[in-house]
Amino acid sequence: MPRITCLAGGVGAARFLQGLHNVVPHRDVTVIINTGDDIELHGLHISPDVDIVTYTLAGIVNEETGWGIKNDTFHCLKALGKLGYESWFNLGDIDLATHISRTRYMDEGLKLSEITNIHAKHFGVEEVLIPMTDDPFATHILIDDGLIHFEEYLVKRDARDMVRGVEFKGAKDSKPASGVIEAITSADGVILCPSNPIVSIGTILSVPGIRQALRDTAAKIAAISPIIGGSPVKGPADKIMSGLGLEVSSLSVAKLYADFLDSFIIEQVDMPQADEINKLGIKVVATKTIMRSLEDKVRLAEDTLRSIDLV
Amino acid sequence: MPRITCLAGGVGAARFLQGLHNVVPHRDVTVIINTGDDIELHGLHISPDVDIVTYTLAGIVNEETGWGIKNDTFHCLKALGKLGYESWFNLGDIDLATHISRTRYMDEGLKLSEITNIHAKHFGVEEVLIPMTDDPFATHILIDDGLIHFEEYLVKRDARDMVRGVEFKGAKDSKPASGVIEAITSADGVILCPSNPIVSIGTILSVPGIRQALRDTAAKIAAISPIIGGSPVKGPADKIMSGLGLEVSSLSVAKLYADFLDSFIIEQVDMPQADEINKLGIKVVATKTIMRSLEDKVRLAEDTLRSIDLV
Repeated sequence: MPRITCLAGGVGAARFLQGLHNVVPHRDVTVIINTGDDIELHGLHISPDVDIVTYTLAGIVNEETGWGIKNDTFHCLKALGKLGYESWFNLGDIDLATHISRTRYMDEGLKLSEITNIHAKHFGVEEVLIPMTDDPFATHILIDDGLIHFEEYLVKRDARDMVRGVEFKGAKDSKPASGVIEAITSADGVILCPSNPIVSIGTILSVPGIRQALRDTAAKIAAISPIIGGSPVKGPADKIMSGLGLEVSSLSVAKLYADFLDSFIIEQVDMPQADEINKLGIKVVATKTIMRSLEDKVRLAEDTLRSIDLV
Repeated sequence: MPRITCLAGGVGAARFLQGLHNVVPHRDVTVIINTGDDIELHGLHISPDVDIVTYTLAGIVNEETGWGIKNDTFHCLKALGKLGYESWFNLGDIDLATHISRTRYMDEGLKLSEITNIHAKHFGVEEVLIPMTDDPFATHILIDDGLIHFEEYLVKRDARDMVRGVEFKGAKDSKPASGVIEAITSADGVILCPSNPIVSIGTILSVPGIRQALRDTAAKIAAISPIIGGSPVKGPADKIMSGLGLEVSSLSVAKLYADFLDSFIIEQVDMPQADEINKLGIKVVATKTIMRSLEDKVRLAEDTLRSIDLV
C-alpha cells in the first residue's frame, strides 16, 4: 500500500483526514502537524492543532465545533475565570487531562513528538502523528496594538483586528521533529490538507529543511485549496492573506506552493483560475471541496489521491 | 469583641468552625491550618486542609463528604486516570481551578499564606486563614512497606495499614507563617479544633515556636476532644495513636496538650476520665461533641467559648 504523508493545521485538515481515514490503511498515513498555535495557559502546554487532529482521528472530537472532545464540560475553566484567570481559550474538563498530561511529560523531559505519540496511542489513533517541530515555535500576528499570539488574535479577539503582519517566532532556530523529513522523502504521496496557507501550512514550511524536502521528494504532492471563490471555508485565511498583501484566491495559494506542488484540488467555482495555476506547472482538479458529510470527506480524499495516481 | 485563634485540621475542624462562624464575628477569628497533608499531584500543589476550611467557611463545601465543592464533577480526574495517572486523590473539576491557581501563584513566587489569603477573599471568607507554615512540610506514615505520604496512607490505601510511626518531614526547618505566632499571643482565646491530635494538631505543634507561643500566651486555651469512648468521630486517629503506642482516649489527647491547655471539651460518655484530666490541671466540660446539624455545631462552639469565659 502507498505511504501517504499529510501536512495539517487544525479543523479543516482534521476533516480532510477523517475522509482519508476511511480510504487508506491508518498505519500508512503520517500527519505532520502545525505547532505554531501552541500556547502556554494556566501553566499548561496547549497544542491546539495536535489535539484537534488526535481527537478527530480518535473519533472523539466535538463535530459541531471541530475542536475539543464531544460532550465535554467546562467547569474548571469557568471556575478559573471566576478566580480572575483568562478564560477565552476553551479548555474542557476532559480535554484538560490531555494538557495536564502533556505538561507533566514535558516536565519529565519528553519531547512534544514523543508525547504526541503516547497520546495518539492512548486515544487509539493508528496514523503516525508528528508535530512539525519539538522546538519552541509560536505564530504571532501584528495588529495595530502590537504583536500578539495567534490564538489571542483568533480566539480572544475573534480575528477582528486588521492584520499588519505575521511573525513565526522560533522558526529560524527550529528543527523538524524526528521523522518529519523522512516521512516526506520516503512517502509515495504527500498531501497538503485544506488548511490556512500562512498560519497552518506556512508555519510547517518555515521549519528549516521541510520545504526543501518537499522539493526533493520523489513523491507526487497534492494540495486542497482552503479558498472557495475568494473566501476561506473556515477561519481567518482571507484576513491574514490580504493583511500580507496577497490576493485571497486559490491561485494565490497555488503560488505559495508552486516550487513543489504537482496537483491542486479546487472548487468548481474557481475553475476560471485553472489556466493560471496550470501555468505554474501545477495540475488542477476541480471537485467539491466543502466537507459537510462523511461522504464529502471520503470523496475529497479519493479525488485527492487520484490526482497523484494513488488510487 | 474577643479575638479567637483556632488550630485546625480538615473535616472535623471545618465542621466546628462552621459553628463558630455562626456565633462570633468572622473578622475576629483567625484559623491556623495544618499543611502536613499538602501534596503535589499532576504538577499541582494541593493543600487539602486549607481548601476544606476555605470551602466550608465559604459555604460551598460538599457537606456529605466534608471535602471538595458541592455538585462538583470529576471529568478531568477520570480522564487523567484513563491516561494512566493516579486518580485516587479526588480532584473535582471546579476544585481543580483552585489547585491550578495555587500552583500558578507559587510559580510566580507567592507564599502559600499569601495565596490562601487571596483564595479566602475570592470565596468570600472573612475569617483570617493562615497555613501553619509557608515552608515545605509533609506528614509521612511508616507502614510495613516503608514510609508513605499521609494522603497515600489515608486515601489511596484507605488507612488500612498498621501504623508503625509518623514522620513530619520538614518540621525542624519550618517557620510559622507570618501572623501565626502573633495570632496566638494576641488572641483572647485559643481553640484547638476537634482534629487528629497527631497528624492535624500535632503537625501544627511541631512547627518550631508554635507550641511555645501556646505556653506563653495570656489567652485561655480550649480543645475539643476528637475521641468519643475510645474511637475517633472520623478519620484514623485511633490507628495512628495506637500505632504510636498511645491509648486511644480523650485522656490520652489531653496529655498531649497538657503543657498549655486550660479547658477540654469531651463527650458525656468520657466523663469517667474527667478526674484524670483534671489532675493534669485542665478543666473538663462534658457536652455533645458529635456535630450532625448546624445546631450541634453552634452549641459546641458556644460551649467551647463559655469554657474559656468568652461568652
